[in-house]
Amino acid sequence: MEKEIGFEMAASSIRFGSGVTTEIGMDMKDLGARKVMVCTDPNIAKLPMIKTLIASLDDEDVPYVLYDRVRVEPTDTSFKEAIAFAVDNDVDAFIAFGGGSVIDTAKAANLYSTYPTDDFLAYVNAPIGKGKPVPGPLKPLYAIPTTAGTGSETTGVAIFDLEEMHAKTGIANRALKPTLGIVDPLNMISMPPMITTSTALDILTHAVESYTAIHYTNRPRPERPMLRPAYQGSNPISDMWAIKAMEIMADNFVTAVEDPTNLDARGMMALAATFAGVGFGNAGVTLPHGMSYPVSGMVREYIAPDYISDHPIIPHGISVAINAPSVFRFTGPSNPKRHMEAAVALGADTIGVREEEAGELLADTMIGYFKRFNVPNGLKDVGFTEADIPKLVAGTLPQHRVTKLSPRPAGPEELAELFRGAMRYW
Amino acid sequence: MEKEIGFEMAASSIRFGSGVTTEIGMDMKDLGARKVMVCTDPNIAKLPMIKTLIASLDDEDVPYVLYDRVRVEPTDTSFKEAIAFAVDNDVDAFIAFGGGSVIDTAKAANLYSTYPTDDFLAYVNAPIGKGKPVPGPLKPLYAIPTTAGTGSETTGVAIFDLEEMHAKTGIANRALKPTLGIVDPLNMISMPPMITTSTALDILTHAVESYTAIHYTNRPRPERPMLRPAYQGSNPISDMWAIKAMEIMADNFVTAVEDPTNLDARGMMALAATFAGVGFGNAGVTLPHGMSYPVSGMVREYIAPDYISDHPIIPHGISVAINAPSVFRFTGPSNPKRHMEAAVALGADTIGVREEEAGELLADTMIGYFKRFNVPNGLKDVGFTEADIPKLVAGTLPQHRVTKLSPRPAGPEELAELFRGAMRYW
Repeated sequence: MEKEIGFEMAASSIRFGSGVTTEIGMDMKDLGARKVMVCTDPNIAKLPMIKTLIASLDDEDVPYVLYDRVRVEPTDTSFKEAIAFAVDNDVDAFIAFGGGSVIDTAKAANLYSTYPTDDFLAYVNAPIGKGKPVPGPLKPLYAIPTTAGTGSETTGVAIFDLEEMHAKTGIANRALKPTLGIVDPLNMISMPPMITTSTALDILTHAVESYTAIHYTNRPRPERPMLRPAYQGSNPISDMWAIKAMEIMADNFVTAVEDPTNLDARGMMALAATFAGVGFGNAGVTLPHGMSYPVSGMVREYIAPDYISDHPIIPHGISVAINAPSVFRFTGPSNPKRHMEAAVALGADTIGVREEEAGELLADTMIGYFKRFNVPNGLKDVGFTEADIPKLVAGTLPQHRVTKLSPRPAGPEELAELFRGAMRYW
Repeated sequence: MEKEIGFEMAASSIRFGSGVTTEIGMDMKDLGARKVMVCTDPNIAKLPMIKTLIASLDDEDVPYVLYDRVRVEPTDTSFKEAIAFAVDNDVDAFIAFGGGSVIDTAKAANLYSTYPTDDFLAYVNAPIGKGKPVPGPLKPLYAIPTTAGTGSETTGVAIFDLEEMHAKTGIANRALKPTLGIVDPLNMISMPPMITTSTALDILTHAVESYTAIHYTNRPRPERPMLRPAYQGSNPISDMWAIKAMEIMADNFVTAVEDPTNLDARGMMALAATFAGVGFGNAGVTLPHGMSYPVSGMVREYIAPDYISDHPIIPHGISVAINAPSVFRFTGPSNPKRHMEAAVALGADTIGVREEEAGELLADTMIGYFKRFNVPNGLKDVGFTEADIPKLVAGTLPQHRVTKLSPRPAGPEELAELFRGAMRYW
């Protein structure tokens, strides 16, 4: 195997500022958009803040159609509904206004309405899908996050639950990244505490996983540059974004949860989400994300506090973070320096900590956040038992795209141990 | 005046790695390019490294035309020659292989051949030009820097000397930014010491000027988002790039100059150039750059060591850096904290330094580099005298785009003092 010799960094352009949502109508007008599809979910559609967006379009006489049926934690079925809506309405631009689910759905609607295919799995990541490259440029997509977590506004990744497999998978291609991410802290002040916490844990795991991922030079070199994956392993550019995201998190997490209308803290968390998004969007995530997909896919009855949902739901940030301490204890020995640096960036004190305790220190730092913010105490708290482990392992194994970036290889036996270690933390 | 409420970050995608130049043929093939214009300058055209690029195109049977007549420190006349070449050959993609002059020339050739205009000043920055927005998307441009300095591979800026005014100006628009910047340290190992030094000083001033520029919220808010300038003032994203660029510089400058084939140091300097490029490409530069334009435009006889040129030339990095210590002594009081942080990132020791000495500390840190690397000792060393000051001031005043980003306003009297302070440093 020839080892990788380079890495590539791509990110959406980003506009940041309190109030910048009011500019979207002018953006669409100056783009010459003929009919814009505004994507959101049914909960956000009821909130006052979407009125700001709609007023901005009306002010500039921009024609639009509102699609407010995005499913929180989307599925192939919900993606297909949005795609059909885009096709039926012959739209030529997209605005996504919501969390990761909304932005990811808009990416899929853009891709499949621009390059229709009979085979939905064509563009889906291998080995579940065929991983076909995107044939050409997509339509303009402006993404306005209303949560500070996924970083989806900067990435070319769209995640969904493939219903027939009960597992999450996704489409990852640089071509999918939004034209512009519009990060406006004013859109985030209505997030209740558990949503703030869950999305913040998503930032945290994006940053730490991308920072502790294998180095890009340990991946095989692709045959052609267009086949270089979006998730490439850690590299000097993603490292910078990741560490900065952790530092901002450590300074602002508590304030954002406990003083929700503090616009400075909201703004900094929004920036941290974007920074972590650029980081993992180019370096990738590892085992905690890989293991989260069956966790959220196999949920039975749990509905997280503050989440309004007609179906059981373990929020993405929690389904990822809940595995992370167990994983970091396991991966620590593979690169103690990076685990230690991540713990420090998250506010840990390293005095008296030996190198072989780096993974433990990082795990404990995360568990400290769990306790402070009433995050479930391991998988048992969200309804899983040891009897579920074989199925959880089976659901993780196909997630090659992320599990292969783990700094320490994990096969079925190791994954079973990792899930066992994530059952209860204190 | 309504103050600015947001900022926007845009950057080219970047591919980094020793040997990635060999992939360019596949990139062009996968793009479906019909005829590629390869831009370079007459000196680079003679170096062996361009053979790697040409072989890569030949391997994939990509049709191309070679344009090797880029002028080092380009002018409107040299831009127009390149534009005519692009039009005459009906090219549909561009590769720029060279320093900032080459990349900037390719940007202009792309813009004016895609959207022809009878008025060359149409797209040029106001007040010298009309600052007209770019009408739409440009053709693909892949930029491969052979120096580590300008960061032009990441920015939407193209600088040239407007001959009738004897002063540098430029075109600054996000639409100009290359599709992909290909940063390959192997293309930089043939840089002789003075070129390494001059380009490194360009990195250093990009980083420090963007970090000490006015804050973006101190600019007026534009009427429409499309009128938001590329140069917006310092902001939390450009700050991160700038500080990181300074830190990398401080660790690698000496090795890169004194051990030119050290590929690690070359690679880190190349990364620093790119980082500083993203930083200043979104935040802007200030007085040292504004003052450099008449300095390089009014050169009489000086030809820097290691530069092969048929005309007198003060390399860009030197024409900027030579003013910088004088400027930082002046701007220090406007924001001592940032001047101090920049000095620290560049390796200065702050023990016993009082806040009011921050500008002096930063100036001294730069002068330390000048002495170590045989940089001219002020404007007198490159042929100017006090009698030139009125003309130097007159040549700086129209550079609003950058001078207005100075953290401390400078009118004609202050500029005269600043040039006087830059005549001789030790």
